[in-house]
Amino acid sequence: MKVERSAINPRRDQDYPEWYQQVIKAADLAEISSIRGCMVIKPWGYAIWENMQRILNGMLKKSGHKNAYFPLFIPLRFFEKEAEHVEGFAKECAIVTHSRLQPDGKGHLIPASPLEEPLVVRPTSETIIGESFANWVKSYRDLPLKINQWANVVRWEMRTRLFLRTTEFLWQEGHTVHSSPEEAMQETRDMLEVYRVFAEGYMAMPVICGKKSNSERFPGAVDTYCIEAMMQDKKALQAGTSHFLGQNFAKASGIKFVNREGTEEYGWTTSWGVTTRLIGGLIMTHSDDDGLVLPPKLAPIHAVILPIFTEPDRSIVLQYCNELKQELEGNVSSFSDISIEIDDRDLRGGEKFWSHVKRGVPIVIEVGMRDVGANSVCFSRRDAVRSGKQTCDRNTFVGTFRSLLDDIQAILFERARQYRDTNKVSIDSEAEFFAHFREFGGFAVAHWSGDSAIEDRIKKELGVTIRCLPLEGGEEGICPFSGKKSKQRAIWAKSY
Amino acid sequence: MKVERSAINPRRDQDYPEWYQQVIKAADLAEISSIRGCMVIKPWGYAIWENMQRILNGMLKKSGHKNAYFPLFIPLRFFEKEAEHVEGFAKECAIVTHSRLQPDGKGHLIPASPLEEPLVVRPTSETIIGESFANWVKSYRDLPLKINQWANVVRWEMRTRLFLRTTEFLWQEGHTVHSSPEEAMQETRDMLEVYRVFAEGYMAMPVICGKKSNSERFPGAVDTYCIEAMMQDKKALQAGTSHFLGQNFAKASGIKFVNREGTEEYGWTTSWGVTTRLIGGLIMTHSDDDGLVLPPKLAPIHAVILPIFTEPDRSIVLQYCNELKQELEGNVSSFSDISIEIDDRDLRGGEKFWSHVKRGVPIVIEVGMRDVGANSVCFSRRDAVRSGKQTCDRNTFVGTFRSLLDDIQAILFERARQYRDTNKVSIDSEAEFFAHFREFGGFAVAHWSGDSAIEDRIKKELGVTIRCLPLEGGEEGICPFSGKKSKQRAIWAKSY
Repeated sequence: MKVERSAINPRRDQDYPEWYQQVIKAADLAEISSIRGCMVIKPWGYAIWENMQRILNGMLKKSGHKNAYFPLFIPLRFFEKEAEHVEGFAKECAIVTHSRLQPDGKGHLIPASPLEEPLVVRPTSETIIGESFANWVKSYRDLPLKINQWANVVRWEMRTRLFLRTTEFLWQEGHTVHSSPEEAMQETRDMLEVYRVFAEGYMAMPVICGKKSNSERFPGAVDTYCIEAMMQDKKALQAGTSHFLGQNFAKASGIKFVNREGTEEYGWTTSWGVTTRLIGGLIMTHSDDDGLVLPPKLAPIHAVILPIFTEPDRSIVLQYCNELKQELEGNVSSFSDISIEIDDRDLRGGEKFWSHVKRGVPIVIEVGMRDVGANSVCFSRRDAVRSGKQTCDRNTFVGTFRSLLDDIQAILFERARQYRDTNKVSIDSEAEFFAHFREFGGFAVAHWSGDSAIEDRIKKELGVTIRCLPLEGGEEGICPFSGKKSKQRAIWAKSY
Repeated sequence: MKVERSAINPRRDQDYPEWYQQVIKAADLAEISSIRGCMVIKPWGYAIWENMQRILNGMLKKSGHKNAYFPLFIPLRFFEKEAEHVEGFAKECAIVTHSRLQPDGKGHLIPASPLEEPLVVRPTSETIIGESFANWVKSYRDLPLKINQWANVVRWEMRTRLFLRTTEFLWQEGHTVHSSPEEAMQETRDMLEVYRVFAEGYMAMPVICGKKSNSERFPGAVDTYCIEAMMQDKKALQAGTSHFLGQNFAKASGIKFVNREGTEEYGWTTSWGVTTRLIGGLIMTHSDDDGLVLPPKLAPIHAVILPIFTEPDRSIVLQYCNELKQELEGNVSSFSDISIEIDDRDLRGGEKFWSHVKRGVPIVIEVGMRDVGANSVCFSRRDAVRSGKQTCDRNTFVGTFRSLLDDIQAILFERARQYRDTNKVSIDSEAEFFAHFREFGGFAVAHWSGDSAIEDRIKKELGVTIRCLPLEGGEEGICPFSGKKSKQRAIWAKSY
């Protein structure tokens, strides 16, 4: 059997982390910058982020959230207000201490004009937004207050990796205030559901919704909920979190309201966010040894048309391509902004074809004089690029293009779901659990007594943590690590 | 004659700067934060910015620009590379010097882990983007490179004012590389034209396109072009700038390409940007003594419907309002996202009506049982709110709603243009020039020899500067300040 050369080297099974870097490079999504741990998001990567933003923004507005913008800088005194919060972030903050540069007399510049109070570059905005909310909220009539912000945040991470963990990243952060714990908890869960729908419906990335154990909770939260996905190396990726903050941050910031009975009480708050990390999840869920694979609903371009001609036929072939582009863009209604690109660069055919495969364009169409003569379309699907090209009557192709994209979207989700489910096993003994992670990896679904000492031990011995306590599947049982009673099974895995 | 009370106090003619603050407060657009010079952009203000972004983003993509994202932090060594540039920004930079906080032993936190090299929070991104461009550009085939970034930037301003001048602001910054000075200059001028079309066509804010004198040039640029608008206090507002950077930044960052002849040369670059300052311009161009006035093309909501009923008629009136909302939203095709709000809050009618006037909603519709019976609509136009309400047959109103919005848009532009032109006078003697600024203010269109000593003197004596050398109207003449020859007239004004 002939082994075909893959477009990406190394392959996933050879060196997964390096394969990940090479997929990003081949698709021209992003690159490391000269600033420690910061990335440059290149146009193709940013176009995917813009699609994610557009869709999520629509979902957030539909659920009654309004966008606003709060300062990048947090005065130290705000940051200190919530003890667990500052404890959680103090070790990884960029601190602004000066407001001017002045010559050092040796031809260089040095910081000057020290600030009276240092400013923290926001790692998250609970404390600065809380300051505003305390002024905005007076009465129960002002509630619920449901605000979202699209912004950059900075966490001084020690080990960084493109999209997955960078010093600066982009995200949306939602912040809400409610008049009761029930309503705030409902919001926390509703937003988790928004993230699930986005991950599964648009990213085609199946997720498990659950609650974090106390050790993995957001610093300052009462409860943290999350969506967890499985990457192709069987590790878990936390893809979004939604926090029920109780009255912790309301007390820290002084968010108080007069209730219907005329009594003043603290508000109940939530916060929730997803980041450019989602692009890392997208890459690792679908990409293969030939590069990036994009679900059509997030692809910046749905199909690329490659005209193939010798010079005398140039205008005939290009006209056919232009007509086809217009027919396809006009015909596809369920994808709001269908986008077809004609690539007539002067490049070798094979090189050109594979450049689009590597950057994940769902459909690559080739049009030559033979197609013009037969009124046909020769195309290749990114989800099955090694299965070869198909030829189709032009009108049929145009008429079924939408269902072709739907089909690719569905297949990507189904493939990822099968992979996840195949690598998710129920385990009932400690020996089996250890063997599972030493030999296979993946998700282990195992009972747990709730004792954090068990989490610590397993993290130390196996590098495995509880990813979440799933919202579904709550039958009681026995913790295999302690023999004690367990309320429900947890998802255990290595993670990013 | 009865003097009506204005909704905003003080009025424009009483205290213009305070009126500006009060309009922002009454429309709930933004507020000062606890962080020196930083603002919080509230939902109504941010919704205007989102509309600006959506429209401008579409214009930039249509002209072949792609969005990307570059790091927030600039290492000092990059920043130092362009001498004029660093000179221009060194005095107003936020500098990150530490990456951690640690307890001071007295219950507070202090910065720890000093960085080896301080980082500048970007005041503009030429130097950091240049670092990437130097890697991306190899050959003439890579050019032109046309990139845009939507981002936050920080300039440590001494005197700040909401939207007009804030320590942190939001903007778009375009950065391009070209293979010839002619092409780079064309890009500089093309982008200025995009800004003019946006300002006049969407903001309904007339602008003068021109070139800055050397003293007002962007630090490091060869030439800076700008659009200048007149506010209602007759001061000028620089609303957007487009810079021809020559090879200055290409040399500083090492952006080189191999040309068609096989020779390596430095690229020719441009940069251009508009900021949240545009919202300040929007406010000061159209608003009146009753608050914000929004041009329909940028209004987040085009009309608000106020149902007026006594309890038994509630459902009848609300049904009429809902039908009307649907008819209006479905009917208006030239405004892509027409948005109608029904405000059924339990508030006094007058208070509710004026709340929408103050926040600038173009049309306020009131619907009571009488309108339901007559199948009519009673409405008031924001551009003529003191002229009273009009009643109109429902079908006619729905059928002409689009032209009603177009009409308001056109009237706002025309009003602003007339105001600007009335307060723009040609002046040919120094005495007249001084009298003009001491007695009236506005734009003076006067010749100038090109000598920057004249600019300095006039700035010192009158607080007046050259806003631009207009692109149109270049007849030669005599400089009234020096008696020397002048190539063209300049626009002189006090400015923000």
